[in-house]
Amino acid sequence: MALIVQKYGGTSVGSTERIKNVVRRVAKYKALGHQIVVVVSAMSGETNRLIGLAKEMQAQPDPRELDMVVSTGEQVTVGLVSMGLMQEGLKAKSYTGAQVKITTDSAFTKARILSIDEQNIRTDLANGYVVVVAGFQGVDKEGNITTLGRGGSDTTGVAIAAALHADECQIYTDVDGVYTTDPRVVPEARRLKTITFEEMLEMASLGSKVLQIRAVEFAGKYKVKLRVLSSFEEEGDGTLITFEEDEKMEQAIISGIAFNRDEAKITVRGVPDKPGIAYQILGPVSEANVDVDMIIQNVGVDDSTDFSFTVHRNEFDKAMDILKNQVQSHIGARNVVGDNKTAKVSVVGVGMRSHVGIASKMFRTLAEEGINIQMISTSEIKISVVIDEKYLELAVRVLHKAFDLDQEPA
Amino acid sequence: MALIVQKYGGTSVGSTERIKNVVRRVAKYKALGHQIVVVVSAMSGETNRLIGLAKEMQAQPDPRELDMVVSTGEQVTVGLVSMGLMQEGLKAKSYTGAQVKITTDSAFTKARILSIDEQNIRTDLANGYVVVVAGFQGVDKEGNITTLGRGGSDTTGVAIAAALHADECQIYTDVDGVYTTDPRVVPEARRLKTITFEEMLEMASLGSKVLQIRAVEFAGKYKVKLRVLSSFEEEGDGTLITFEEDEKMEQAIISGIAFNRDEAKITVRGVPDKPGIAYQILGPVSEANVDVDMIIQNVGVDDSTDFSFTVHRNEFDKAMDILKNQVQSHIGARNVVGDNKTAKVSVVGVGMRSHVGIASKMFRTLAEEGINIQMISTSEIKISVVIDEKYLELAVRVLHKAFDLDQEPA
Repeated sequence: MALIVQKYGGTSVGSTERIKNVVRRVAKYKALGHQIVVVVSAMSGETNRLIGLAKEMQAQPDPRELDMVVSTGEQVTVGLVSMGLMQEGLKAKSYTGAQVKITTDSAFTKARILSIDEQNIRTDLANGYVVVVAGFQGVDKEGNITTLGRGGSDTTGVAIAAALHADECQIYTDVDGVYTTDPRVVPEARRLKTITFEEMLEMASLGSKVLQIRAVEFAGKYKVKLRVLSSFEEEGDGTLITFEEDEKMEQAIISGIAFNRDEAKITVRGVPDKPGIAYQILGPVSEANVDVDMIIQNVGVDDSTDFSFTVHRNEFDKAMDILKNQVQSHIGARNVVGDNKTAKVSVVGVGMRSHVGIASKMFRTLAEEGINIQMISTSEIKISVVIDEKYLELAVRVLHKAFDLDQEPA
Repeated sequence: MALIVQKYGGTSVGSTERIKNVVRRVAKYKALGHQIVVVVSAMSGETNRLIGLAKEMQAQPDPRELDMVVSTGEQVTVGLVSMGLMQEGLKAKSYTGAQVKITTDSAFTKARILSIDEQNIRTDLANGYVVVVAGFQGVDKEGNITTLGRGGSDTTGVAIAAALHADECQIYTDVDGVYTTDPRVVPEARRLKTITFEEMLEMASLGSKVLQIRAVEFAGKYKVKLRVLSSFEEEGDGTLITFEEDEKMEQAIISGIAFNRDEAKITVRGVPDKPGIAYQILGPVSEANVDVDMIIQNVGVDDSTDFSFTVHRNEFDKAMDILKNQVQSHIGARNVVGDNKTAKVSVVGVGMRSHVGIASKMFRTLAEEGINIQMISTSEIKISVVIDEKYLELAVRVLHKAFDLDQEPA
């Protein structure tokens, strides 16, 4: 008998019919003798509907009031899931985040969990209940309802699993696991049986939006065994995300190829090579709420250097405008150039720590296809390059093949 | 400066546009220097939508879980109202019933308020906030969310007004006050400036569904000054419901004519005149969840009597079936007869306590129009008769005229 936390996202509970599927799956696990805590999101579309109502009332909805409104989405789902479980003859009980209680800070709309009082849940589980908890929400020390921000339901699931020392936290999504790359681009892409937390973090931040990055960080920190599974398939073991490198049974050097189609690159040329310049460039961009991804600055020549970074394509014009009109003359840069027809491709794998030659193999593979590399950035377990977007699919396919990702590892 | 509790029902907050009207009204009162607590229902249609979802999950939704789901309706409204108030430049803060907190018993879906902790509200009011409270809901001693049942938002408004010793509790509805009778039947019907609680109770229970009867009882018990107003009209003082008879400025003998079109009458003839017979007749009816309105039993003749009562027309067949097949032979009654083409008309007024001749005037007025009275029932401030439904409008009109209700009282 195991204690399992199962988290279902908005698509998995998007209708009463789909909630019934969730109920059947929970009942199946319960019948095997497991103790189950179910964490659910709002029904898909509901959060956006509520945000829409809020914006009709207030141009910039007050964060506290927005959380008051938006948190009802999960509250509805937990009640419906509990009813469904009872209809199947199970004992079930639902909790809001405040009822659990999941204490957070008071950063409305993006609160962080401070502590979880798991006593009620433990008592209910011991009494044979399936406990159904609203994801994405908590309560601050003054009793105000808070939300954890988009994707926070994953974090709730992991945090509850950590508090209960659960045997496993299962994250049900609309994919059946983590793949070596996007199967829509590479049909030979293979589902990974396991992946390490570090790799998962890199994959998640690079656009393989299977799990929210905060949830993965949280799981890594509290050593929660995470498994990604499909809520639409009956069978399959999904992908286990391990926190111990030596639990990783597949000893591949590279775990996958991540990519991001929506990167736009911007270069500020002829930047004076002196302290504080990076902040003077990125400060105004950040203040305009433009998120910056890769940042590259090479060694300068003649007291001058080039500073490059990437932004989401939708924010390219805004960022260019800021740099040309606010930054360029202020810092005395030569000019600002950009290209919004770029894409980022990364190879990810903890194995590359101990294997030289991954980078050269990646660069050679791309060169053999005539793909020019515009920018390079590396971390301990990842190498990312920016290329012309028209070569994106080709690059992903050839790299996937070059690193033998279509083969089960030995 | 007064402390005013304003309660707005589902129709008044049925869309973001309508909520903006509520916001403007609150802002107007606030500008006059008043302290305002706003109590709101769910947006119209929302509660039924949520109940619909619940029924798709569980044939008989679990009451605790149903309250979990349904209580989100008001929670959304309080957030939206607060945002609207802030958009107008006011300070505002919303509360769920649990946050206030409004402690109730654990009778889910029909809970009763046990106590209200008004400290947070008082503090916020003192700090210049408009406080927005979710109607219809509370929390039991174990922290479970409860609802007060349909119309419970009125009760919340009154209960909060009582806890705060508010100067007035204003109930905004889709009518602009309490009328002497239904203006659709009698165009000369006149809005009452004041009505006593006792009269209001009789009017409410007789089909003038302006206020929930529980809220009126609550207001009477705690001496809360209630005022019914239209949320769709800018002007007008509505109707003040007074708890002191001598506050009643209009000294009319009769305050109004109430009526109910959907009454069906049933008579059990030749009932043995002995103890326990009323229970033997009504017990099975009540067990079948058929609500009984008027009950009449006259003095018996020859150890036998006739027992009559009225039920809602929709439940006439069900009640007749029970009486004919379960009750009649069991108690040894002669037969059961019924008529579902009847209606009830009542004259209501505290003034009749001290005025003889109201009944005879009523009966004479009906007789002059050739309207036969089938049943009569009286209380201290009300006389009700059952008549053929085809005479209903005529009866209401002639009684309204006979008691000079179209004239302002002297």
